[in-house]
Amino acid sequence: MRRTHHRCVIQSESSESGSESVSDTSMRCISCREEYLPRDAGTCKECYVEAGETEEELKREIEDLKAKVTFLRLSSSLDHGNSSSRSFTDVVLIASEDSASSPPVPAHKALLVSRSPVFRAMLENEMEESRSGTIKISDISYDTLRTFVYYLYTAEACLDEQMACDLLVMSEKYQVKHLKSYCEKFLVTKLNPDNSLMTYAFAHQHNAKHVRDAALLQIIENMENVTKREEYMELVEKEPRLIVEIYEAYLSKQVNTAAGGTSTSKTC
Amino acid sequence: MRRTHHRCVIQSESSESGSESVSDTSMRCISCREEYLPRDAGTCKECYVEAGETEEELKREIEDLKAKVTFLRLSSSLDHGNSSSRSFTDVVLIASEDSASSPPVPAHKALLVSRSPVFRAMLENEMEESRSGTIKISDISYDTLRTFVYYLYTAEACLDEQMACDLLVMSEKYQVKHLKSYCEKFLVTKLNPDNSLMTYAFAHQHNAKHVRDAALLQIIENMENVTKREEYMELVEKEPRLIVEIYEAYLSKQVNTAAGGTSTSKTC
Repeated sequence: MRRTHHRCVIQSESSESGSESVSDTSMRCISCREEYLPRDAGTCKECYVEAGETEEELKREIEDLKAKVTFLRLSSSLDHGNSSSRSFTDVVLIASEDSASSPPVPAHKALLVSRSPVFRAMLENEMEESRSGTIKISDISYDTLRTFVYYLYTAEACLDEQMACDLLVMSEKYQVKHLKSYCEKFLVTKLNPDNSLMTYAFAHQHNAKHVRDAALLQIIENMENVTKREEYMELVEKEPRLIVEIYEAYLSKQVNTAAGGTSTSKTC
Repeated sequence: MRRTHHRCVIQSESSESGSESVSDTSMRCISCREEYLPRDAGTCKECYVEAGETEEELKREIEDLKAKVTFLRLSSSLDHGNSSSRSFTDVVLIASEDSASSPPVPAHKALLVSRSPVFRAMLENEMEESRSGTIKISDISYDTLRTFVYYLYTAEACLDEQMACDLLVMSEKYQVKHLKSYCEKFLVTKLNPDNSLMTYAFAHQHNAKHVRDAALLQIIENMENVTKREEYMELVEKEPRLIVEIYEAYLSKQVNTAAGGTSTSKTC
């Protein structure tokens, strides 16, 4: 309990309400049921009710949108127990990394075209892929390909850090912005002092600005430890420009903090 | 302005806070900036801040869901300016009402199958429609068919009352629940004393429970006027069972109101 339980006498000075002017009133929050002091007062009752209505409306909108998402999802040929959904597919994708042993992933040209401008160009322009009905995807495992295609149908994927990185690369290559943003959000939640440097380098390489910014913040908050790491030495060798950017950001933060400190000391 | 502007003196009785115990404090709502009396107090500051954070979270969730909906939408062959989307279609739908003059509406079997169990049965079981690649839809105009197919691709439709009724019939026939619910919501917003009786009969005929309940409520609130209408006479002739149900609901409301009135007079 952070609040002091505090009993208040509230006296109205208003002349016309003489009969009720002195009352022994302790205020109790409608929401958490705790008593509070006037200095901790939040809203009036009317605004509380309005806020509750707004929340209900937002929740209804969320329910509607979730129903829409469920409706719009297409079942892919990869759905478990959906033997019939393989029908009407008109193209297969093959993960070339896994050699000939991995099975082709069937899909629909119309869907690929709708989700990716790269597939659109490939399939609508009578290129080799369109004629043969086979799209070979290089440098990708069968598992990643399956997950990628499944996402195109459903906007859902089960991620771990490796899969998020692999899918981010795929989404960059095939310009599937929604998937890229999905992977970026996931990677940001997984950032920690240990992986921040490598994540930063990865994000830089694949234009993942959101991850890059978050990783940079993490790095400059742990500069002393980061600069002792093996990956730091490697990056100094391979990507010195990246290390320079980190130091520039670090310096900029130092200057800002110092300026903030000065201004605080002035006001004190 | 519903609130009286009212200045309050708030005095704390707590012994340990003697120095601040008497203060001239008028409470001002953090949200609407109006002053208010203790009896109109809503929440404490902490709960106000929490509610604000919840609202922000809900809004972020809505943004995410909207982005997902945009991603999952498929462009249909009916999208304006999307000449290429006609490619890869493997079936056409024809509105038989408009005779041979109305153009076929191209679509994708995989999508129709995913959206409607009726299309699924039709197309996956090697029926005539699957072999010919042509689905004839009876008793429907070309415009309704276009709108229906467009909805299957995008979960969007531009409705007026007639279109909502036509699509509700289609959604019932092809078991597209999401569209049915969409039409029902629209029709409920369009209910008024003038159309309530016909809407009720229509909803009854097409198992639109949500509309039916709303229309019934509208009817029994305007019984005197409704029973004078021409449609009332028609329904008495054609669907007397429906009229009986209306009277039963009306009676039930009367009894409940009377019971409520008695209980109120007892407490007074």
